[in-house]
Amino acid sequence: MSRVRVHNFSISIDGFATGEGQSLDAPFGHAGTRLHEWFFPTRTFQQMLGKPDGSNGIDDAIAGTWDAGIGAEIMGRNKFGPQRGPWENDDWNGWWGPNPPFHTPVFVLTHHPRPSVEMEGGTTFHFIDATPQEALRQAREAAGDLDVRIGGGPTTIREFLVEDLIDHLHIAVVPIVLGRGERLWDGLEGLEKRFQAESVTTPSGVTHMTFTRP
Amino acid sequence: MSRVRVHNFSISIDGFATGEGQSLDAPFGHAGTRLHEWFFPTRTFQQMLGKPDGSNGIDDAIAGTWDAGIGAEIMGRNKFGPQRGPWENDDWNGWWGPNPPFHTPVFVLTHHPRPSVEMEGGTTFHFIDATPQEALRQAREAAGDLDVRIGGGPTTIREFLVEDLIDHLHIAVVPIVLGRGERLWDGLEGLEKRFQAESVTTPSGVTHMTFTRP
Repeated sequence: MSRVRVHNFSISIDGFATGEGQSLDAPFGHAGTRLHEWFFPTRTFQQMLGKPDGSNGIDDAIAGTWDAGIGAEIMGRNKFGPQRGPWENDDWNGWWGPNPPFHTPVFVLTHHPRPSVEMEGGTTFHFIDATPQEALRQAREAAGDLDVRIGGGPTTIREFLVEDLIDHLHIAVVPIVLGRGERLWDGLEGLEKRFQAESVTTPSGVTHMTFTRP
Repeated sequence: MSRVRVHNFSISIDGFATGEGQSLDAPFGHAGTRLHEWFFPTRTFQQMLGKPDGSNGIDDAIAGTWDAGIGAEIMGRNKFGPQRGPWENDDWNGWWGPNPPFHTPVFVLTHHPRPSVEMEGGTTFHFIDATPQEALRQAREAAGDLDVRIGGGPTTIREFLVEDLIDHLHIAVVPIVLGRGERLWDGLEGLEKRFQAESVTTPSGVTHMTFTRP
């Protein structure tokens, strides 16, 4: 059975995965880039930008596991873009330019479906209004034998965790107190009982935590 | 100038330092012992119980720094006991038996002062109704050249952090989702800007974080 995985999902020590005030200019609201500064220097991220360089340390080793064996992604609409409510048009195709780094089908959860968009490099965005279970069924069908990644944001990951649909969860805890925004852990009391937890800190100051279904 | 320190303060990954429902039988409410299981095997804790054994690993190395150079403690009333409101009598002298592990003056913050109690081994409990600044003034006077420890619980530590009175903060983050109780980080947005943060994970699964004023 293919697994359902979350990778490189950053939160503050007070549990916020995005700040307040998400907008086109501030995808993570008042958090700015602070949740992801550990990630930017990594070779994994630099390659997403099409650049050949980047660090090869422990942060990169962990970050780099995000893509292997993934056949489809599911993301929430808030990860796809800052718009809310009905789409004004179909011009917005995500933050990632013409060749997004996914290179697989990507299922965008939205209450406002629109036609699928085929991008360069193998990424196709499908817009579906579906429960986590139904979205996962479609993503698994698209992924074949490969795994499905839940790409975020926090609402989407939390919904899949509540439904116990996630097999592997990688969280990067950044030592900042964000104070406001959207929390990851709400409504997940006792989550650890379903997983084996591992943690490691890296010189960037981040604590990487993995929760894996035994 | 003597420093103000917090040690061995455990929180869940969702930021709760105590669970819901604190009582005589459950000092940490529904959290039970889960926030402190990393601490129990350490030599530091075993010595508090008057036992000669205990582990000497990294958890103990970090835990063991709690006492060196401390001349007084300040604690909130909720750490001292489960009672609320006016004291029914003066019989309760804390959770720690006739010889508490502090061996210094301990200032208990309460809106209901009562006479000081001298315990065995050098611990004297003073019950004061004071602002953080005034409590710290009294504790510093009692501590002489030594440091003052803020012993908890979360409300007390948060109040001292809000007032920027803490110089060194050691937090042990336990990989459980407690879900409810009292949060440490609320109202402390941007706290990290005042400190240098360090983190290390240990094989017990805990992430030790220190925040030290530069």
